[in-house]
Amino acid sequence: MRNTLGAAVTVTLFGESHGPSIGATLDGIPAGIAVNEEHIRERLALRAPHGAISTQRREGDEFSIISGVFNGKTTGAPLTVIIKNDNARSRDYSALADTPRPSHADYTASVKYGGNQDYRGGGHFSGRLTAPLVALGAIARDALAERGIEIGTHIFSLRGIMDRELDDLREDIRLLDNKKFPVLDDEAASVMEEEILRAAKEGDSVGGVLECACVGLPVGLGEPWFDTAEGEIAKAMFSIPGVKGVEFGLGFGFADRTGSEVNDPFVIRDGRVATATNNNGGINGGITNGMPLVFRVAVKPTPSIFKEQRTVSLSGMEEVDLRLEGRH
Amino acid sequence: MRNTLGAAVTVTLFGESHGPSIGATLDGIPAGIAVNEEHIRERLALRAPHGAISTQRREGDEFSIISGVFNGKTTGAPLTVIIKNDNARSRDYSALADTPRPSHADYTASVKYGGNQDYRGGGHFSGRLTAPLVALGAIARDALAERGIEIGTHIFSLRGIMDRELDDLREDIRLLDNKKFPVLDDEAASVMEEEILRAAKEGDSVGGVLECACVGLPVGLGEPWFDTAEGEIAKAMFSIPGVKGVEFGLGFGFADRTGSEVNDPFVIRDGRVATATNNNGGINGGITNGMPLVFRVAVKPTPSIFKEQRTVSLSGMEEVDLRLEGRH
Amino acid sequence: MRNTLGAAVTVTLFGESHGPSIGATLDGIPAGIAVNEEHIRERLALRAPHGAISTQRREGDEFSIISGVFNGKTTGAPLTVIIKNDNARSRDYSALADTPRPSHADYTASVKYGGNQDYRGGGHFSGRLTAPLVALGAIARDALAERGIEIGTHIFSLRGIMDRELDDLREDIRLLDNKKFPVLDDEAASVMEEEILRAAKEGDSVGGVLECACVGLPVGLGEPWFDTAEGEIAKAMFSIPGVKGVEFGLGFGFADRTGSEVNDPFVIRDGRVATATNNNGGINGGITNGMPLVFRVAVKPTPSIFKEQRTVSLSGMEEVDLRLEGRH
Amino acid sequence: MRNTLGAAVTVTLFGESHGPSIGATLDGIPAGIAVNEEHIRERLALRAPHGAISTQRREGDEFSIISGVFNGKTTGAPLTVIIKNDNARSRDYSALADTPRPSHADYTASVKYGGNQDYRGGGHFSGRLTAPLVALGAIARDALAERGIEIGTHIFSLRGIMDRELDDLREDIRLLDNKKFPVLDDEAASVMEEEILRAAKEGDSVGGVLECACVGLPVGLGEPWFDTAEGEIAKAMFSIPGVKGVEFGLGFGFADRTGSEVNDPFVIRDGRVATATNNNGGINGGITNGMPLVFRVAVKPTPSIFKEQRTVSLSGMEEVDLRLEGRH
Repeated sequence: MRNTLGAAVTVTLFGESHGPSIGATLDGIPAGIAVNEEHIRERLALRAPHGAISTQRREGDEFSIISGVFNGKTTGAPLTVIIKNDNARSRDYSALADTPRPSHADYTASVKYGGNQDYRGGGHFSGRLTAPLVALGAIARDALAERGIEIGTHIFSLRGIMDRELDDLREDIRLLDNKKFPVLDDEAASVMEEEILRAAKEGDSVGGVLECACVGLPVGLGEPWFDTAEGEIAKAMFSIPGVKGVEFGLGFGFADRTGSEVNDPFVIRDGRVATATNNNGGINGGITNGMPLVFRVAVKPTPSIFKEQRTVSLSGMEEVDLRLEGRH
Repeated sequence: MRNTLGAAVTVTLFGESHGPSIGATLDGIPAGIAVNEEHIRERLALRAPHGAISTQRREGDEFSIISGVFNGKTTGAPLTVIIKNDNARSRDYSALADTPRPSHADYTASVKYGGNQDYRGGGHFSGRLTAPLVALGAIARDALAERGIEIGTHIFSLRGIMDRELDDLREDIRLLDNKKFPVLDDEAASVMEEEILRAAKEGDSVGGVLECACVGLPVGLGEPWFDTAEGEIAKAMFSIPGVKGVEFGLGFGFADRTGSEVNDPFVIRDGRVATATNNNGGINGGITNGMPLVFRVAVKPTPSIFKEQRTVSLSGMEEVDLRLEGRH
Repeated sequence: MRNTLGAAVTVTLFGESHGPSIGATLDGIPAGIAVNEEHIRERLALRAPHGAISTQRREGDEFSIISGVFNGKTTGAPLTVIIKNDNARSRDYSALADTPRPSHADYTASVKYGGNQDYRGGGHFSGRLTAPLVALGAIARDALAERGIEIGTHIFSLRGIMDRELDDLREDIRLLDNKKFPVLDDEAASVMEEEILRAAKEGDSVGGVLECACVGLPVGLGEPWFDTAEGEIAKAMFSIPGVKGVEFGLGFGFADRTGSEVNDPFVIRDGRVATATNNNGGINGGITNGMPLVFRVAVKPTPSIFKEQRTVSLSGMEEVDLRLEGRH
Repeated sequence: MRNTLGAAVTVTLFGESHGPSIGATLDGIPAGIAVNEEHIRERLALRAPHGAISTQRREGDEFSIISGVFNGKTTGAPLTVIIKNDNARSRDYSALADTPRPSHADYTASVKYGGNQDYRGGGHFSGRLTAPLVALGAIARDALAERGIEIGTHIFSLRGIMDRELDDLREDIRLLDNKKFPVLDDEAASVMEEEILRAAKEGDSVGGVLECACVGLPVGLGEPWFDTAEGEIAKAMFSIPGVKGVEFGLGFGFADRTGSEVNDPFVIRDGRVATATNNNGGINGGITNGMPLVFRVAVKPTPSIFKEQRTVSLSGMEEVDLRLEGRH
């Protein structure tokens, strides 16, 4: 398996940034789950670049579900969503095939696929391929929400600027659901946006850390070896272009602590077993323990910058200077 | 699949800490690979707790290979290694079944398996199960070394004490191969050991960060989506008991930087494409780029501490105090 | 995994007979394989019902490849082919949801998916979903042919009428490539066609046996246990609607024989190891032995008949008579 | 995956005929299933060759369960069973490495594994490896029986001699459970045994057909594409050494029939949906329909015969005569 993720429920992802369409197939979902196209549209809109921030391509994310839904519900057969790349201008990308952009996949793809990869706009490696994942995720979110499971993500930090800590999780998730820029503290949000714009003006980009919380999970998800809750989530996260680190609970913060400082004591809360603290981020022994599952991912600055950079000409095997034609 | 890792080559892990045996099956390895039992013994000895450090159980790691090797070489059939739990004293562990140790898997296992889990000494969740993985890893190390691929790991930091940075990787890997305590800087090593002993004397434990480097990998390993080099390694790492974070290259250090600071320019070195810096830890777009693959994992303090802790009685659904009978 | 077949190379199939589109994704194929759309068109035309034979729906099998091909070659990324269901007339199929057609999947689907299945025209179970498989198969055929591997299938028997035996395999495969009705003996072909027409006139259908031969395979494909050459092929064959038996070489003919009659002696032919006979159909111990791989599949009469049949009303839980509105 | 079968529940098989041990690991079974070692012993005894029939090696099938069982029940962790090859006499098998036995795996294994395979007694290909599968199967049988699911197999035919047809399935399964030679008609049984002995005396072997019935399955097992009930069972069957054909219900008997003759009408029986006939062997559209699941497998005569046969010397690349040293 290559472009397929999951076991009981699987996602298969296909398409290239400038090919006819991108899409994904979700298999293994139960029959009878309501599919709300309006919610899919909302989530795709949140994903799309907005204002002056991020890459400025105007993406037409008109999706169509071509299988697996009948009378507004999942049928139990594979559900495929397709998004057309209707406004892919056929700019000349052939230079990229020879002079790989630093820290992008251009070079590794060229070697791995013997020069046959679709190099236009990153091809199959493009961040644009997250759009069908967001569409399928919107369906999964609705199904989970019906079972009381809610998921939210905010920007934890960006170039040293930090959002406020998560507090009442269900409330914070609701707040984040309505934000275009997923930061809880409005003041931090504007400083972050300024920072992004400043970098963009200089043809540069910034990194950050995202934090994700999931509440309402049952006890018992995950396996002791290999298919741990941490491992499965981390594997999925590292697929997102630019992610270079994943940590659960205290994560790297555990390194300076002692067991007596960070062990999570079990307590009884509302007649159920809980932990007094949640340093383990809701997972013990690779298995969810019923506490909120909390993790953070490190995202590197997008390597698409518009300053002069050093790279090589693969045909000439010599070093050359590269300046990307930007849209900044 | 649960207790199986990998695709082309798979490992299936079985056994419980206090059951008759633990073991693992390696499938998919090419036929004809030399199996050096002495090397396996050496690696198992390095893994075993030594001196006053770590958990003090005297483990008899006498292994036997019961399939897949003929005339000293792999046959192409599954290779199974077994390690007997010969000195598993049948101490009374039944209390653990009712009062789960904080931050251990006792509670999640009890819920997931309906109380049928082998709770003695952590059962299937025990760190002892890494022993057969180390044995199989020794075979893989030899096979990789023949192809010029070398792997080494050191303690990057422990309670704020840091080892020196990796420098000449092949040389450092060789140094680490001969060390019982995998720290390059001898002074740092003794401070770390003191710190571990101090905590142990107090019935406590310490966390740390490990750093692993792999040199000699070809360009092209990993897939753009889901089976990325980062994702596959992270999934394997999170199986190791106590690992709560994984980062590649700069990892979480990317968060405060700009693209122009951290992009790795391509250069020509010795007639081959390389990168001038290695902030991406040898991976671009989920695929190895031929530079050393470098990652770090955060390990939490072992939750087995011998101080009084709060936990619950699952039968009585009430909070109780727990003090583990230690071997410290 | 449900709707995905294969390991190194995988196919994921999606779509319903009367949904917007059907399609399939091929993943794991090497980059750089030429994709000949004309060949795909030819194979789809051979698959399509012709003349008076088979189900008479005029199928618009206009396909489009929406990912994985660039400059006429595979890119190494997933290759997705889509076929629109443009002329799916929205006949009223709702009766089928309540009165399942005998020997069809209507009843089992209804129970499995809790009534949420797309029941129109068999939905996801429809034989129409073989069209994208044929399209992807055309690409694979070309790639295999370049390596000297050729595959052909003929009707071995139909209601007692038998085609002539396979003889010079490469020659016979070429003959079959140009036949709309895949029977080598023209006389047998016309009797078979008469038989099909006679049954169709009576609103009935006929069963048969197909025989497939594959020449040019290397020695060594398949695994001793579970992923045997026979097992992998059989699993794929049983996915084709209506297939109820698969046999290799002598198959069920082995049952009445002795070892000395049917063992295939090894001989030297043209300086290479071969077998004097091929009773094992090119497979020993689950692994291809370099001889032609030959197998037969039993296909039941299509259950879509237009005579009165007994079935049940699922809503009323009572027996009722059913007469399908036919296109015969 | 190679030596692993299954999805939700998996079996991984390891060992060679003359290595230290053979064994198998069962993963994914629910926790809390009772493990009855006496039942395992009974099933292994039924599997073992008895009297003058079959291969005469006295096999010591003393098994031990080394993981996954605690207090007589499954723990939810992988269950591994080991059987020692204690009486494997180290006869000189090296001749087999050069002169492969006709219709055995000796030749294909030699090519596939580059001569590194354990060739003694068939190595990993040996029928002896079915012993751990029988042991694990005994556990599964008990668990299924508790849910009302029963499975039985008889010899359907052997060299033209046929057993009586299956009748009252639950009753017939019980009869078969107590038979050393699994034939319902005692007269047919003795003629079959005579036939086997006659062939054995001549250093020859005989083929046959087995029929298996499974009653009590729920409606809904299997998937429409690829993971069909037929396909999954067939894949498992073709792993058993010597199996060359699998058919469900009428199987190859469908080929001469019309739809109106063989469609299974739905009826109401005891207030539940059933079919009046069971020509489809309990499967519609790849999914179990609640009727008994019935299939037959063709088994070729064991290729281990003791008559002179033609084979080749792989080292000399010339044809030679081979006469196996028999134990008949």
